[in-house]
Amino acid sequence: MAARFEAVDAHYAQRVRDSFARQAFMGLIGAGLSSVEPGRCAIALPTRDDLTQQHGYVHAGIVTTLADNAAGYAAYSLMPADCSVLTVELKINLLAPARGEALEARAEVLRAGRSLTVAESRVFARRAGGESLCATALITLMAMQGVTDRAPV
Amino acid sequence: MAARFEAVDAHYAQRVRDSFARQAFMGLIGAGLSSVEPGRCAIALPTRDDLTQQHGYVHAGIVTTLADNAAGYAAYSLMPADCSVLTVELKINLLAPARGEALEARAEVLRAGRSLTVAESRVFARRAGGESLCATALITLMAMQGVTDRAPV
Amino acid sequence: MAARFEAVDAHYAQRVRDSFARQAFMGLIGAGLSSVEPGRCAIALPTRDDLTQQHGYVHAGIVTTLADNAAGYAAYSLMPADCSVLTVELKINLLAPARGEALEARAEVLRAGRSLTVAESRVFARRAGGESLCATALITLMAMQGVTDRAPV
Amino acid sequence: MAARFEAVDAHYAQRVRDSFARQAFMGLIGAGLSSVEPGRCAIALPTRDDLTQQHGYVHAGIVTTLADNAAGYAAYSLMPADCSVLTVELKINLLAPARGEALEARAEVLRAGRSLTVAESRVFARRAGGESLCATALITLMAMQGVTDRAPV
Repeated sequence: MAARFEAVDAHYAQRVRDSFARQAFMGLIGAGLSSVEPGRCAIALPTRDDLTQQHGYVHAGIVTTLADNAAGYAAYSLMPADCSVLTVELKINLLAPARGEALEARAEVLRAGRSLTVAESRVFARRAGGESLCATALITLMAMQGVTDRAPV
Repeated sequence: MAARFEAVDAHYAQRVRDSFARQAFMGLIGAGLSSVEPGRCAIALPTRDDLTQQHGYVHAGIVTTLADNAAGYAAYSLMPADCSVLTVELKINLLAPARGEALEARAEVLRAGRSLTVAESRVFARRAGGESLCATALITLMAMQGVTDRAPV
Repeated sequence: MAARFEAVDAHYAQRVRDSFARQAFMGLIGAGLSSVEPGRCAIALPTRDDLTQQHGYVHAGIVTTLADNAAGYAAYSLMPADCSVLTVELKINLLAPARGEALEARAEVLRAGRSLTVAESRVFARRAGGESLCATALITLMAMQGVTDRAPV
Repeated sequence: MAARFEAVDAHYAQRVRDSFARQAFMGLIGAGLSSVEPGRCAIALPTRDDLTQQHGYVHAGIVTTLADNAAGYAAYSLMPADCSVLTVELKINLLAPARGEALEARAEVLRAGRSLTVAESRVFARRAGGESLCATALITLMAMQGVTDRAPV
């Protein structure tokens, strides 16, 4: 369903990795970039007891964080090098409890505009050798032109 | 705009506090319950460097976590004692970068049904003595009847 | 990405057609059912001048109506015969102006629960022999058990 | 909760009325502007049989149309005269069946940026002398600079 995209910046993957590495919150929860392609990004997270809600599942806030971040970097992969990316808004449906050994959010861009990008993320839980869909999200992102990813906005 | 609600369980506030205390993720990020009333809940978070995204602001995932959790407990405060609460879906608009000394999410129930509850959360950033709105969310929650808050779903 | 579903009611397609035919608003705007399968539904609409907004494109409200209705009947196709379906909430991203000879919304169920169903709709505009994606939506629907589709709720 | 806004274009109300009058779809369904203020707009609709869904209530698509349009004109009231407004995305929770003599959507801007505006709409049903909340929506709108409201986008 998704269109195929080409990156305008040849160094898009390194740019995404550098930005991800500067997100201190990713370090706190132990999330890592699984893959980056033009208009696509995946982020994985081994589950841990300190990421849970009251029933012992991974907190919906963590699931949403992964979905948002994968979408953000899927969008950012298509932007020029002198931009940075912000989430305008997101909507997520939590389809099943997030439990298992690991979660992975996989995002792809549906439409990339000059200013706004719309992406879709699915979050999967890996468990006992298989995986199941636990959330789906629709996310709007904005390119901030002329604001480098390292600067305060 | 919001309706006034009455709690059917006199021990609603203790029930919310107990459930919140079992959310290990709240401990990890240092969030605390500010207030609980029938159909309302507020959660506060002192900002910290390890909660940030690449620009040094609090990560959108944290902002969303607070909005979601405040809405969840606003809904849970109105449920019978033998229920637990799950987020069905949420939508959040991030209105301004989340920066300052602390964040607070304040939620109120808009409609409480037997099965589904709809709540609204606003997230404020406190900074230099004032506060400003940094996000607004609309959230659908579900009561799981006969499933205690301590049990796996 | 979507799971394959089986209908529990062998007469699901007739049930969907009957319900659609009772939606007076579909008659007013000239929309018609294109296809119904278990967990899937498509609705088409020839564009008309009296469906437009100020720029002469089809109104976002019409695009949303088609997305919502296709999702509702995709969900309804999987429900038992003694249920009816209601939209709990919907979120839509409008990706491009809706213009052309016709619009078609195509929905598929992502997860069908006993009470709640989550579906995705894409709306396409047909123009000059081709078609393009003009909106994508994520929609939560509820089965009302024991309420026939003909009765007031 | 909402901020108070000032219109930058003194003729904002006439501009909104003119644009509304050019929306042919508003004529088809019989909707009318109730009020326009800076950052606020209300749209009313007498209910009619040809606007209904299968249970005889006003179709969710109509409820969403009103919520979207009120938000769009609330946003447009704050924009410079040489702009036009587009809906980027919307999310609506349908809280109760839409029935009664009339519906009214009331929107207010939560945040007006140079490019993006976020607004909230509530839709009320008037019935037997009273009114009740039947839907609430959160909507993102975009100003298209240098594109007049009369032109194709």
